[in-house]
Amino acid sequence: MSDAELTCNVLDLERAARKAIADERLADYIAGGADDEVTLADNRDAFGAYWLRPRVLSGSDVTLSTTVLGEPVSLPFLIAPTGYHVLLHPDGELATARAAAKAGIPLILAWRAGRDLRDVAATGRGSRWFNVHLSRDTGRLRDRVLEAKACGFEALCLTVDSPVTGNRERDRRSGYTVAARTAAMEAAGFPIDGWSEPRPGATDLPTWDDVQRLAELTDLPVVVKGILDPRDAVQAIEHGASAIYVSNHGGRQLDGSVPAICALPEIASAVEGRAEIYIDGGIRRGSDVLKALALGARAVGIGRPVLWGLAIDGDEGVGRAIQFLADETRRAMLLAGQTNSSAVDPEVVTPTELRHRHPLRSQRWDRGLPDGP
Amino acid sequence: MSDAELTCNVLDLERAARKAIADERLADYIAGGADDEVTLADNRDAFGAYWLRPRVLSGSDVTLSTTVLGEPVSLPFLIAPTGYHVLLHPDGELATARAAAKAGIPLILAWRAGRDLRDVAATGRGSRWFNVHLSRDTGRLRDRVLEAKACGFEALCLTVDSPVTGNRERDRRSGYTVAARTAAMEAAGFPIDGWSEPRPGATDLPTWDDVQRLAELTDLPVVVKGILDPRDAVQAIEHGASAIYVSNHGGRQLDGSVPAICALPEIASAVEGRAEIYIDGGIRRGSDVLKALALGARAVGIGRPVLWGLAIDGDEGVGRAIQFLADETRRAMLLAGQTNSSAVDPEVVTPTELRHRHPLRSQRWDRGLPDGP
Amino acid sequence: MSDAELTCNVLDLERAARKAIADERLADYIAGGADDEVTLADNRDAFGAYWLRPRVLSGSDVTLSTTVLGEPVSLPFLIAPTGYHVLLHPDGELATARAAAKAGIPLILAWRAGRDLRDVAATGRGSRWFNVHLSRDTGRLRDRVLEAKACGFEALCLTVDSPVTGNRERDRRSGYTVAARTAAMEAAGFPIDGWSEPRPGATDLPTWDDVQRLAELTDLPVVVKGILDPRDAVQAIEHGASAIYVSNHGGRQLDGSVPAICALPEIASAVEGRAEIYIDGGIRRGSDVLKALALGARAVGIGRPVLWGLAIDGDEGVGRAIQFLADETRRAMLLAGQTNSSAVDPEVVTPTELRHRHPLRSQRWDRGLPDGP
Amino acid sequence: MSDAELTCNVLDLERAARKAIADERLADYIAGGADDEVTLADNRDAFGAYWLRPRVLSGSDVTLSTTVLGEPVSLPFLIAPTGYHVLLHPDGELATARAAAKAGIPLILAWRAGRDLRDVAATGRGSRWFNVHLSRDTGRLRDRVLEAKACGFEALCLTVDSPVTGNRERDRRSGYTVAARTAAMEAAGFPIDGWSEPRPGATDLPTWDDVQRLAELTDLPVVVKGILDPRDAVQAIEHGASAIYVSNHGGRQLDGSVPAICALPEIASAVEGRAEIYIDGGIRRGSDVLKALALGARAVGIGRPVLWGLAIDGDEGVGRAIQFLADETRRAMLLAGQTNSSAVDPEVVTPTELRHRHPLRSQRWDRGLPDGP
Repeated sequence: MSDAELTCNVLDLERAARKAIADERLADYIAGGADDEVTLADNRDAFGAYWLRPRVLSGSDVTLSTTVLGEPVSLPFLIAPTGYHVLLHPDGELATARAAAKAGIPLILAWRAGRDLRDVAATGRGSRWFNVHLSRDTGRLRDRVLEAKACGFEALCLTVDSPVTGNRERDRRSGYTVAARTAAMEAAGFPIDGWSEPRPGATDLPTWDDVQRLAELTDLPVVVKGILDPRDAVQAIEHGASAIYVSNHGGRQLDGSVPAICALPEIASAVEGRAEIYIDGGIRRGSDVLKALALGARAVGIGRPVLWGLAIDGDEGVGRAIQFLADETRRAMLLAGQTNSSAVDPEVVTPTELRHRHPLRSQRWDRGLPDGP
Repeated sequence: MSDAELTCNVLDLERAARKAIADERLADYIAGGADDEVTLADNRDAFGAYWLRPRVLSGSDVTLSTTVLGEPVSLPFLIAPTGYHVLLHPDGELATARAAAKAGIPLILAWRAGRDLRDVAATGRGSRWFNVHLSRDTGRLRDRVLEAKACGFEALCLTVDSPVTGNRERDRRSGYTVAARTAAMEAAGFPIDGWSEPRPGATDLPTWDDVQRLAELTDLPVVVKGILDPRDAVQAIEHGASAIYVSNHGGRQLDGSVPAICALPEIASAVEGRAEIYIDGGIRRGSDVLKALALGARAVGIGRPVLWGLAIDGDEGVGRAIQFLADETRRAMLLAGQTNSSAVDPEVVTPTELRHRHPLRSQRWDRGLPDGP
Repeated sequence: MSDAELTCNVLDLERAARKAIADERLADYIAGGADDEVTLADNRDAFGAYWLRPRVLSGSDVTLSTTVLGEPVSLPFLIAPTGYHVLLHPDGELATARAAAKAGIPLILAWRAGRDLRDVAATGRGSRWFNVHLSRDTGRLRDRVLEAKACGFEALCLTVDSPVTGNRERDRRSGYTVAARTAAMEAAGFPIDGWSEPRPGATDLPTWDDVQRLAELTDLPVVVKGILDPRDAVQAIEHGASAIYVSNHGGRQLDGSVPAICALPEIASAVEGRAEIYIDGGIRRGSDVLKALALGARAVGIGRPVLWGLAIDGDEGVGRAIQFLADETRRAMLLAGQTNSSAVDPEVVTPTELRHRHPLRSQRWDRGLPDGP
Repeated sequence: MSDAELTCNVLDLERAARKAIADERLADYIAGGADDEVTLADNRDAFGAYWLRPRVLSGSDVTLSTTVLGEPVSLPFLIAPTGYHVLLHPDGELATARAAAKAGIPLILAWRAGRDLRDVAATGRGSRWFNVHLSRDTGRLRDRVLEAKACGFEALCLTVDSPVTGNRERDRRSGYTVAARTAAMEAAGFPIDGWSEPRPGATDLPTWDDVQRLAELTDLPVVVKGILDPRDAVQAIEHGASAIYVSNHGGRQLDGSVPAICALPEIASAVEGRAEIYIDGGIRRGSDVLKALALGARAVGIGRPVLWGLAIDGDEGVGRAIQFLADETRRAMLLAGQTNSSAVDPEVVTPTELRHRHPLRSQRWDRGLPDGP
């Protein structure tokens, strides 16, 4: 039996990607988070803080297709914006775009894409959104936004959680700095001389008015990404946002942040249906998707699993990651008696009640623990 | 001292069965659960989330005998429905039936039994229930139900948590697929050509009306197995069920499900005595049985421990598993001042209060942990 | 530096005793608990479920002396009843009695003492209580109680949590059965032909009326040991008990029981000062003693630490165990601003609030944990 | 890449200091806590019991400068009082004072300083506070306080949590007693014949009136350090304290104490702004500082990290420790949308909700755990 046949889920893809990525520093850059990586781990574990309480005999099959921003999608998934795809596969963002189109889900193209947005647009049909940061260089931001609009991009995804980059100690320790990443891009044949640093300096920080100005720049809907506080969700709506993207940037910005899934219920309650809600951070199983939908999300962002697939096998690999999650989501919904991804019963999710306790003695023996008190 | 003398409990049987089962894939098939096996583990750990608060000087001895579905039983136990017994012992379900009859408890014969239900019925006295799944092939389901009725089976146990099979990654990784299991059955001399897949396709899913139709098919009482939500428990009663069987299928269907024991109290509260309640999932000690009875169950289903006993020593082994649990239940009840298995004081169980804390330093030293912060 | 100088606390005595006891089965008999030893471990960990909130500048020194059952004691400690002292040291209970007298605390002599109660009484001054079990052989129980009274024993301590012996799997696995212990007693020169099994058979279980009869047998105060439920505490008082001894028998009877310290507050609340309250189970530090006093205990029982000291160095060793705990209790009270062991501010104890969380990454590295999700 | 370049945070300094300190007993003396070191560990872990809920698009840069006791400081930090600096670096407290002055934060000079307070004062500009203990020898205490006042010390920091020294078993085991430390001081050229033991004997314990007398001795503001109970905070204010310093002495006094950060909210609530509040214990990251500020602290005390820096590289090393924490605090505040260290939104902190759960199976495999139940 080949290794490929033993790949059952996206966690297997993670292990395979670790082997497939030649530069260990790049693999660490993808895997890592800020400071002590507590939020990185909490994002994942937080899904375990909820139990599913399945219903039975629903009598209907599962429908995963839904709409986001009014447009039909085949799955309640988004390709979350992540940079440097060309370092993982020569086709880079072109491959990701093809996989997203094939799966019928939107691609959110990162600012730091190795492939030009026009080339991405030229890969054919498929919904694409453009990810932007508020910039001191408003002229350049305006130019790129108008270019995205002209290319057929359908929405803007504005990241607001990164006035500065998080403290990525893995990268500081491995030396995988901005300069090293720039050199890697050049070596891969994708020089980034044209990239200006889009983030504002700390002396000129953006405000909610800048969101309003961005929303007024085009008629493209604006998704505000990086919201964890219900008050900010309300602010975003009041300043023209069409959707709230709940995220702590995959644990890469403020370590110790509330896990995205734990922030979701209060935000859903504050938004009261006035905007769509998306979420990312730690989604690795179909049951995680189901929990997010039950707690108020319309779609979930897939970040690292897309990168793992891309590193392993380009657009085919990305497709495998999406397929694993789609199949698992469908099965989880069927087993939970949920028939429609846009109408999941909130009561299918319940907080866990288990308290920590001693492992049973027989387990303690196996682990070689001492007698204990 | 021989190994046999060191066998003190069903967890010892688990270890012995692991050695006794030649095909490791089969042992894994029995041991495993869905996805990340979180529910598999939670089922067990959830019993640790309750403490016992024993009473003293009750003045009476313990009575374990009770009734289920109106019939007397010697112990508040059921043999939970599990398949493929003939792969563990040539006598297969015949051995299990003999052990159940000897112990005075009902056997719930699985649909996927290697031994025919007429042969099982022919092993002599003893209460047997027949486990069915709702099927597209209603003719075949009807035939088998009537056959079970004719053979003297006393109840129908309808599994409702399996519209599709859970994602058993252990089996996918080991290659122990349906085809492999079919081949194993043939090699063991029990070809299963006659088995039609009783489960409905995803395009034609059963409803509560199908439960009603099943209940009306014969005068046998119907036990609905796989309930975790109080609303479904009420539905089951309204559609003709005589008993509710709280279960997450031993962690083999929807991973992340609420542990059965944690779902029990709310279900007991919703049922309000209108139906009997049974439970399975993770019961390995007499104190687990006591907790389940205190939280509202009339009887507990024994699944894997029966298989471990069967693999080790046929009906004798099954008898040992039952005896361990019976002896432990009797002792636990006596030590807790509970005298009657059908009238356990609910207040003998209380949720644990312990929060996680650091292991004591001396323990940390023993474990070789670092200095810490 | 010698080993002796490195002994800082009773946990060090535990390690030393493990080496000092030649028969490992005996050491395991002392160390072990019932079933999976969950309660054994919980007893200890439960003290960690409470934090101390110290006061400052109390302006007074610490007074540890108090009274129990109206008699003055130097420390709020009792020597808990434990059997077989002669297997740990030839002087056996005589040594323990000498150490208790020297420390100014009561010895509760176990029924299964190797040394006769008259010999224990003959060791000189010191308060002794006699531990009894309700027996079918009421004549023998009466004889021994009257003998204890005649010898100057000052109280009866009635154990009510042991209608049968707990399931001690360590002893079953090691073969350290009653027969083996009897043989060991004979080999040590203390044949126990005269011991009748004082516990009732399961067919003739004692009731609260038996407590009343015991209380009326002499004018000795009766302490009821093994209470975990407030309703039983009230029953005990109504049937003549002078004191309630909260205990789960050191985790040796019903596994899964509530830890003694967690049962204490509700019992103290139900007793409302009508009887004294003692507690044992897992007390290994002076801060544990302080917590027990704050939560309503008048004195704490010391069990295994006494045995560890006895095994190491007879009465001197027992004295060391007591001294460690006395010194630590005095220091803990002084640091917590508590001046009187019989008037500890209940608010000095507060439940912990910490939830489980990830170890910091740096710790995870040290432990060789994987990257995580 | 050199080791130095790999130093990213104060935890790296801890590791480096462990290597830099030749006498392992001294390193242990610094690292250790009382008894089982539960409070030592809880202090650190308690910060993990709070999540940050960041705000976005604040529009302003971060201001860390604030005032303490009415005087401007560059950072919301204090150098917590710790002894024996000369054992870590020949310049000892002179180096620490220079680093504090350079960073623009107060140094709290310990009573057990190897360098005379006049020499510390002579290092130049910078705010210094003098740490005192209430003493039987009131004459000597008065002399030193007046001397500090005369030298330009700006406040008195009175430690009230140490009527006796905590039970430091690490030091007892390593033999690093007071005598050993005295010898080390002499060997380092800093004989401490002049040190009288400033702590009262247990027979003559100080009271709140002594605080009042100290406050009236000079016009210097008095900070009362070692408060964990809101009632004591109120007492301190009523007896003349200008500030409350919440601390459990770094886990070195009463083991089992409430972590300082967990005691802070109630104390802040009781103080109601009538006094400034400081805190120390376990602060190792800028996010910890942010949490402390949000929960009511005006400044945080830095203890062990200063010692680590000092041991590695004198005042330069201390400066590095301060700089790491300052940079991280600035980044954490910016990422959390907080602009002013003296006006942090209390709602930026929220208690964690995660309950303990099983590690995912894939992780359990990596850790070599058994199959589980």
